Amino acid sequence: MSILIKNSTILTQDDSRKKIHGDLYIDDHVVVECSEKPLSLEAEFKIDGTNRLVLPGLINTHTHIPMTLFRGYGDDMLLQDWLAQRIWPVEAKLDKKTIEIGTQLGLLEMISSGTTSYLDMYFFEETIAKVTEKTGMRGFLGFALIDFDTPEFESKELISQADQFIRRWRNNPLISPLIAPHSTYSCKPETLQNALDIATKHHVPLHIHCSETRDEVYDVEKKYGVRPVGLLKKYGLLKNETILAHCGWITKNEILDMKNVGVSVAHCPVSNMKIATGGFAPVPELLDARVPVGLGTDGAASNNTLDMFETMKFCALVHKNHRWDPTILPAQTVVDLATRGGATTLGVQHSLGSLEGGKTADLIMIDLKKPHLTPLHDPVSHLVYAVRGTDVCTTIVNGAPLMLEKEFLTIDVEKTLEQSQKIALELTS
Amino acid sequence: MSILIKNSTILTQDDSRKKIHGDLYIDDHVVVECSEKPLSLEAEFKIDGTNRLVLPGLINTHTHIPMTLFRGYGDDMLLQDWLAQRIWPVEAKLDKKTIEIGTQLGLLEMISSGTTSYLDMYFFEETIAKVTEKTGMRGFLGFALIDFDTPEFESKELISQADQFIRRWRNNPLISPLIAPHSTYSCKPETLQNALDIATKHHVPLHIHCSETRDEVYDVEKKYGVRPVGLLKKYGLLKNETILAHCGWITKNEILDMKNVGVSVAHCPVSNMKIATGGFAPVPELLDARVPVGLGTDGAASNNTLDMFETMKFCALVHKNHRWDPTILPAQTVVDLATRGGATTLGVQHSLGSLEGGKTADLIMIDLKKPHLTPLHDPVSHLVYAVRGTDVCTTIVNGAPLMLEKEFLTIDVEKTLEQSQKIALELTS
Repeated sequence: MSILIKNSTILTQDDSRKKIHGDLYIDDHVVVECSEKPLSLEAEFKIDGTNRLVLPGLINTHTHIPMTLFRGYGDDMLLQDWLAQRIWPVEAKLDKKTIEIGTQLGLLEMISSGTTSYLDMYFFEETIAKVTEKTGMRGFLGFALIDFDTPEFESKELISQADQFIRRWRNNPLISPLIAPHSTYSCKPETLQNALDIATKHHVPLHIHCSETRDEVYDVEKKYGVRPVGLLKKYGLLKNETILAHCGWITKNEILDMKNVGVSVAHCPVSNMKIATGGFAPVPELLDARVPVGLGTDGAASNNTLDMFETMKFCALVHKNHRWDPTILPAQTVVDLATRGGATTLGVQHSLGSLEGGKTADLIMIDLKKPHLTPLHDPVSHLVYAVRGTDVCTTIVNGAPLMLEKEFLTIDVEKTLEQSQKIALELTS
Repeated sequence: MSILIKNSTILTQDDSRKKIHGDLYIDDHVVVECSEKPLSLEAEFKIDGTNRLVLPGLINTHTHIPMTLFRGYGDDMLLQDWLAQRIWPVEAKLDKKTIEIGTQLGLLEMISSGTTSYLDMYFFEETIAKVTEKTGMRGFLGFALIDFDTPEFESKELISQADQFIRRWRNNPLISPLIAPHSTYSCKPETLQNALDIATKHHVPLHIHCSETRDEVYDVEKKYGVRPVGLLKKYGLLKNETILAHCGWITKNEILDMKNVGVSVAHCPVSNMKIATGGFAPVPELLDARVPVGLGTDGAASNNTLDMFETMKFCALVHKNHRWDPTILPAQTVVDLATRGGATTLGVQHSLGSLEGGKTADLIMIDLKKPHLTPLHDPVSHLVYAVRGTDVCTTIVNGAPLMLEKEFLTIDVEKTLEQSQKIALELTS
């Protein structure tokens, strides 16, 4: 498939952060050229880029996509109450059908708000993979391991099921399977080791929640004599291709342990602030230590959206506020986190995160002709401080348009919204 | 003019926070009835409310509307650098024409994102008033006093000009003039006293920046021996119908001074976090002391939007994060701040802030049929945690539609966006 975008402003997000005004040509899943000279080429899709900003698609490095069904079902509650009274009871009712619909809804929201890759961790990941592939979205899908029976499998089956899941999906152009032991407080050391074995055997990344709350750090230290990062280090999980979600309560010494080993962090400021864990990843220090950092929304149940633009603004502002320093995490750095940083976090910086000849064509277009985006002094500023996910008009993944000028090409919107509402009410009634 | 909204979900925001599904009828600027039974009435405008949420229009209690032209012109800078290098030089170039266009742009953004009343403080307030009235928006417009010449008047003229401004506008149905001494660090005590005299003489509110930054508190205390709240108390300004913007650095003792005297607070979390003043109003303590609190965006130059929905989410989350307590400022409380709280802050709770028979018809409608607003478990949760300003489809002020299903009835959008872009680039070049 070929696509020609004409007459647009293009944020390449390449090494020099070049902005150009011109044309962009995509063929066979790949960005062929970003050109300041008009390109006269035939293409299956010709897109008028006037008043549009083109940039690499955003990469959401931590979510639980079916939980989109639980958006707004339980806010303003203490974490344990929320889990015990709201989330766990409805999760127990999940099955393939509900997961399918929740995934479809999450994909619809992500496509509509400019996300082109997402890192997931949940039950029923096989079902999630099928829906994601069918929709044309790029998914890095973590098969969750945990020391109790899930709504899908008995606990003892999980390792072999994970192994099969990874075998089935490992050569898919859109789906990258990975292994996702839930956390150091919900997985015993043996489970962590099994997860590591699978990751090593298949050369796939490993994704795990780490030091999200004070309670977790306290409990793990009490049980094992080391904090979560230390425990991961002890069992060899603190390594290249491990992605730690949250890291809200890590120390400077732990950052030294994370330095130079290739481990990366998914920073989820909105969810952290809403659940009020009191901590969020020390991004400036992580970047100083050259630890790759990406941004994540976490599940819509604790956010309550999957809007990466909102996450960018919260990221920029929560750190400025915390340090009493407006120069911390300037707009360009935050756009980097959501694009290049996400790609590096997932280990796919060779193919994603910037728009350059030869890179995979995952990109989005923003409609700039809006009251809240006028005037335009600096598009990078707007991306962090003024654009909302709803300003995205076109989303292209792997060279294929999934949303074109607000029209969805691979999802039946009416049906998805209707089914989601119905299923969500059934689950929570 | 009469308007009939049919078959909608209505958040009345009345004393019992009643939600009803039904019809709403407006006649002659006033809400006549919210009814669960279908109303069969003739009306000039009939609006289908299916899949729509109706609520009182949001009240922005602190902004500087023409600064919308400076959106994104200088981010991530230290406050003094930003003011000295970016803001003051462009403000010096402002004139009636540029103010007119900046105001028009700000109004367009506010109408499009669900604000129906705004409290302003700036130069050229006469021009702002004319544009606001013409557009049909409700403005509480503060004539700024400051101890130096403004781009409009010499300093010595300001008091008499303010007096005339208030006389001209005091009986307007849309415009409520007020007096706005800039702050205790930029106005000498004589100016504060003059402001108080005018407020008293005309029975109009007084609006002032107060304790926004640590520097300000330090400087005022060093100069006068008391902190800003103390200085306002000393000169009699801490009283009913005084609205303090920010209050980011106030003490528990100062809250005691503010208790029971009728003074109110405009809380601006996004601007505070972006400028990184390190402080933001202690809203839970203010509410405990029954000090009225409203929400404000501040100017778009330091936000960078006028989106009150975003401000609601930041408000809820920054306090939860700060206190390590997710139960602080639950969604209903935050919706109250943006509606009823704003009305009480401005002293107009008898006419605005809720939808009840006899109240003034300032209201908005949200299009709920969106991926990021599905499923709908609780509309109040959505308003704070999931709705963006861009989801507002209809805005009605004083019984007149200003935006109807995304179509603007009183502003030429194309022209406003084009002129704003042109003027903004001229000002900053």
